[in-house]
Amino acid sequence: MLSGVYTGDERLTVVDSEPETPGAGCVRVRVAYVGICGTDLHILHGAMDARVTMPAVIGHEMSGVVDAIGEGVTGWVVGDPVTVMPLQWDGTCPACRAGNNHVCQQLNFIGIDTPGALQEFWNVPAETLLALPAGVSLQAAALAEPTAVAVHDVYRSNLEAGDHVVVIGGGPIGVLIATVARSRGAEIVVFELDARRRELIEGLGFTALDPREVDQAAWVNSWTAEAGADVVFEVSGAAAAVLAATDLVRVDGTLVVVAIHPKPREVNLQRVFWRELRLVGARVYRREDFEVAIEMIANGAIPTEALITRVVPLMDLQTAFALTASGAAMKVLVEVQGARAGKR
Amino acid sequence: MLSGVYTGDERLTVVDSEPETPGAGCVRVRVAYVGICGTDLHILHGAMDARVTMPAVIGHEMSGVVDAIGEGVTGWVVGDPVTVMPLQWDGTCPACRAGNNHVCQQLNFIGIDTPGALQEFWNVPAETLLALPAGVSLQAAALAEPTAVAVHDVYRSNLEAGDHVVVIGGGPIGVLIATVARSRGAEIVVFELDARRRELIEGLGFTALDPREVDQAAWVNSWTAEAGADVVFEVSGAAAAVLAATDLVRVDGTLVVVAIHPKPREVNLQRVFWRELRLVGARVYRREDFEVAIEMIANGAIPTEALITRVVPLMDLQTAFALTASGAAMKVLVEVQGARAGKR
Repeated sequence: MLSGVYTGDERLTVVDSEPETPGAGCVRVRVAYVGICGTDLHILHGAMDARVTMPAVIGHEMSGVVDAIGEGVTGWVVGDPVTVMPLQWDGTCPACRAGNNHVCQQLNFIGIDTPGALQEFWNVPAETLLALPAGVSLQAAALAEPTAVAVHDVYRSNLEAGDHVVVIGGGPIGVLIATVARSRGAEIVVFELDARRRELIEGLGFTALDPREVDQAAWVNSWTAEAGADVVFEVSGAAAAVLAATDLVRVDGTLVVVAIHPKPREVNLQRVFWRELRLVGARVYRREDFEVAIEMIANGAIPTEALITRVVPLMDLQTAFALTASGAAMKVLVEVQGARAGKR
Repeated sequence: MLSGVYTGDERLTVVDSEPETPGAGCVRVRVAYVGICGTDLHILHGAMDARVTMPAVIGHEMSGVVDAIGEGVTGWVVGDPVTVMPLQWDGTCPACRAGNNHVCQQLNFIGIDTPGALQEFWNVPAETLLALPAGVSLQAAALAEPTAVAVHDVYRSNLEAGDHVVVIGGGPIGVLIATVARSRGAEIVVFELDARRRELIEGLGFTALDPREVDQAAWVNSWTAEAGADVVFEVSGAAAAVLAATDLVRVDGTLVVVAIHPKPREVNLQRVFWRELRLVGARVYRREDFEVAIEMIANGAIPTEALITRVVPLMDLQTAFALTASGAAMKVLVEVQGARAGKR
């Protein structure tokens, strides 16, 4: 079988090997599509070399079908369409015991800490599988994982119907957050630098503004009758955005830190104090978030076609990463199924 | 009557004037004691010159007795012992309409934005008065305002009985937060640089540690069976403390920003994300917080005697501020009653 592996030094390659029989408690999935995300780019650029074991099969946004079933696994039939929630927790740490197993203190993120989805046949623990409803395309289903991230971000924000919501950064996660928030009855504005992305976002019915062309705080104050936004999602990862974000939030409002900030960032704590703000971290998802995500994809609530910019065969893995890195794409999917045919 | 006024250029002076008759809806209070707080020091040091109107009668932590009653005011009798909650809100801004009038977007903080308590006779709106229960000394009652701050900080933290709580900074507010948190059934550790303060805090039955002499994160992990603290209160105002504080909080735990940070501070947002932390601002108090504070002082739950380091006559105002600025004192009270006798 073919696998896409990161071998260090910003290199990706496709290698051949024999598929393995699934062990006890595991299921072998024939992978169909894998989405490339910012974390995969971070791995490629070496930022996570201390964490990954090379050669590393990466990828954690995916869809596929059940291909073989390990000992002791019940409830699955070969051919079932599935996606994988790529988390494993120890169940014994303080976070798990307190009911927060999705942020287990020894969390194994499959596709980062252990081999991921960029392979034709992928063995995963049976409990990480989620069934896809009939009629969901395998391309759309590859967006279940980032959609679950967005569902979890909105869950952490405690937003309510009628809330005014600002999304800073209109990449795939920003658009998915906007979509989930709108489905809960919120009013949305997205601040995004890239004109093509703004055009796509406007096409989905959102207001999208260039933060360089408006005074964001004045715009939000005018939009909210001088109250400020109920919830702001910081999805850009930019230091300047973090510093400015607190000026957009209403008294007793919430700023959700969605983007990953590897270095400490300056935060306007005077404003946090003055307006009694809440700044909330959100990481990955709970199983219920994943289930909501799949349901939203099945219902057509997620604009998967607009978000999938390109589908690239596994043999062109570098192209998929280059497109993602360029910022010219929203979501790029790698087509893993039929990879061998592509090789011939 | 005598008043303590800030006249700019780090100068304080005592001036003489005629007491004024209280206007409609107002009550004249004969001021007994006024506590000096960090905000008063900030004013003295010029940091709030853009906000105060000079010459400024400052002071907002106080006790006294009703001296004269303006037109239309009911429910008060001359001689009633009182304290003042020094806030006035407009009742019409978005924050007020949402029920957060204590952080009104046009809040008038009496003693900063308008004349404060450092005067023998002080006219205040009747609705800012709170009655003191029989048996509460006027010295102890002067601690109602900072105690209300602590009650509000604990309210914002959502702490629960049995929680492990870290207080960073063991000045008056830190000790009051520790006291309120302990009264709710929490376990407390206080990190404080000053050895004399640590000794006082230990004398009140708390664990007090020098943050330079222990690895704070390791200590907290060991104390909490590797979970981390449920709640951390950042009361020090130090940049290094803010940066380190996030390492002390458990998954899904809370960091309350109590200290005022005039400049943006670096915050470890990676940790906020990784552990799904909440960073919460807390400012002043609601009326119910003030009522709880008075009740705790009346019950003897607040160690007012240990906290009041010195009582200084109004004529020695500079001494009161110098002692507070030196860090050698916990709380210094200015005795305003009998000031004229002191002058003779």
